[in-house]
Amino acid sequence: MTSSIQFKILSTSSNTNARRGRLITPHGTIDTPVFMPVGTQATVKTLSPFELREMGAGIILSNTYHLHLRPGEDLVDEAGGLHQFMRWPGAVLTDSGGFQVFSLAKLRKITDEGVTFRSHIDGSPRFFSPETVMEIENKLGADIIMAFDECPPYPATREYIETSLKRTLAWAKRCKASHQRSDQQALFGIVQGGMYADLRREAALSLVDLDFPGYAIGGLSVGEPKPMMNEVLADVVCHLPVDKPRYLMGVGSPDDLFEGVERGVDMFDCVLPTRIARNGTVMTSRGKVVLKNAQYSRDFGPLDENCDCQVCKVYTRAYLRHLLKAGEVLGIRLTSYHNVYFLLDMMKKIRKSIEEDRFLAFKREFYESYGFASNDSE
Amino acid sequence: MTSSIQFKILSTSSNTNARRGRLITPHGTIDTPVFMPVGTQATVKTLSPFELREMGAGIILSNTYHLHLRPGEDLVDEAGGLHQFMRWPGAVLTDSGGFQVFSLAKLRKITDEGVTFRSHIDGSPRFFSPETVMEIENKLGADIIMAFDECPPYPATREYIETSLKRTLAWAKRCKASHQRSDQQALFGIVQGGMYADLRREAALSLVDLDFPGYAIGGLSVGEPKPMMNEVLADVVCHLPVDKPRYLMGVGSPDDLFEGVERGVDMFDCVLPTRIARNGTVMTSRGKVVLKNAQYSRDFGPLDENCDCQVCKVYTRAYLRHLLKAGEVLGIRLTSYHNVYFLLDMMKKIRKSIEEDRFLAFKREFYESYGFASNDSE
Repeated sequence: MTSSIQFKILSTSSNTNARRGRLITPHGTIDTPVFMPVGTQATVKTLSPFELREMGAGIILSNTYHLHLRPGEDLVDEAGGLHQFMRWPGAVLTDSGGFQVFSLAKLRKITDEGVTFRSHIDGSPRFFSPETVMEIENKLGADIIMAFDECPPYPATREYIETSLKRTLAWAKRCKASHQRSDQQALFGIVQGGMYADLRREAALSLVDLDFPGYAIGGLSVGEPKPMMNEVLADVVCHLPVDKPRYLMGVGSPDDLFEGVERGVDMFDCVLPTRIARNGTVMTSRGKVVLKNAQYSRDFGPLDENCDCQVCKVYTRAYLRHLLKAGEVLGIRLTSYHNVYFLLDMMKKIRKSIEEDRFLAFKREFYESYGFASNDSE
Repeated sequence: MTSSIQFKILSTSSNTNARRGRLITPHGTIDTPVFMPVGTQATVKTLSPFELREMGAGIILSNTYHLHLRPGEDLVDEAGGLHQFMRWPGAVLTDSGGFQVFSLAKLRKITDEGVTFRSHIDGSPRFFSPETVMEIENKLGADIIMAFDECPPYPATREYIETSLKRTLAWAKRCKASHQRSDQQALFGIVQGGMYADLRREAALSLVDLDFPGYAIGGLSVGEPKPMMNEVLADVVCHLPVDKPRYLMGVGSPDDLFEGVERGVDMFDCVLPTRIARNGTVMTSRGKVVLKNAQYSRDFGPLDENCDCQVCKVYTRAYLRHLLKAGEVLGIRLTSYHNVYFLLDMMKKIRKSIEEDRFLAFKREFYESYGFASNDSE
């Protein structure tokens, strides 16, 4: 069957698995590798769709778990789907709620059938199964939807991971079978398997057998050391088809993005830029800046002198610090804007570096300027 | 001496004191009657300067008391003044902190010299006198600055008001004497006198003797019945010179704006539009809408079908309600935007109605549509 998305590799990189691609969705064409800002509750926190567009975002992520609880998928469906509901003209990806059910919800009970849990908002009892989640995601109407999976904790025993993975793979099959809108929504499978290379391999091969239009790598960045994450990631990617998009879920610090791209990942999402912005931390070409520190009180320069965003063009660190100290919403709006822009712009530069086949050189320059320790993968 | 502002009456209205004017400031020309959005802490809550400009704001108010406490007038001065600090290209008016000292600060002690109080932020001891307030306002650098006054409570005995007024008038003289930047900042006197017509008259005449470039009416909308406020207002305006701008402080509900304009007021400010927006209440051509009410959960129409603002052009009530219920910042951004736009647009229509000499007819139409009871002043 023809997929609702198309993916094309435009260029690759010497000595790494980095690749420059293009993902065509019903709501626009996305240049990859891409960072997807997170709009958990049908809004990327503090920002408007117009601002996201202005800063070059092409695809955002939204959370099935949260939207199911509030305002409910039926209301979103009535509004004409998520794009129409939030007035976002670009593409949307919804996760499956798997991660949230295991991290946010209370009193969960897992069986092969699905997960019973209580809403973290009002304690109401809920049930998620592959079938119910597909129904919800179909109603939300995102361009890319994720299979319902179990996201196991770290650390976990091999036995636990084996049982969990078996279930996740069975659920992937059921998701595929119950997905009703594959003409408009591309369903991605999620590779789990904890930190066990052979289980990850098994997961990848089983999912590839099911022939999804894209593959996600889940259960990473859950507390394991970074070198371990990078190793698992490199192993998994080997077993995924070259011609399909690869999505590393929940990952988004600058170094994780570089390491992921280097290993062949095409898509990323993370709440990091907006979350740290609300605490007054901004990413700059010279590393993180904690704006509340007293040293910035009379700093009349921009957040980042090398940044072209609307915030860096206009406002000073001293003013932004004042807004944050005073608890003013404009402060977190502007730091959120800058941080999301920073990652989108970094990805743009990464894409260019792949096109020009100087990805590793660009990575080295970026790490030096940002202040990351040089790492063993170079 | 030549004033740093110029005021010109362009047209007047039959059967009312409403007037259409133009106020020229060092940061732009303001059409009056005008509503000034309030940017207490050097930001109109949730909104950017760009958005304020986009919706047609020409002048905003900022609070001397708050800015003195945080970030401090010296820092604002170092930044190049308030306009430069907050990147606002339009005009700014700073109040004198009089009202805040009496409403927010703790443990105040009033003498003829000034007011000793404790910061509501950190409890630190502070002293405001006419001279210190002028120094602070000179450093903040607003286009229009206010004399330091005592804002008496309502109700208050005649004796209390007499003593307080005497002090306020002496302070007005001292403010004028210590104001250092009258070439760039216009100092307005503030008419107090409680609800006593003769004291208000005395206050107005004494201030007019001092020849200020503009006059404010303070101590209204402090809890007295609206008919009483309107009566005092009408009396005071009689004693103010026709050729100088008149500013009714802290007033800003739609009906208060109409009643003020009708009695000859040129300038208004109020936190109302942004404050009620944060509680999810919006003003529309058909009256107030409390968005959190369940009846709007599936309302896919705009906030106000007769509004041209960027929010009404784009978003639905159902989406805005979802954002507010979910505690998302974008929700209060968008309701704040709409409410400020609504009042600015209403004032624009009021100005047009004066030009066309149909102010009372426009007022009647507006009240009918908004759902205000017809009032005795017509």
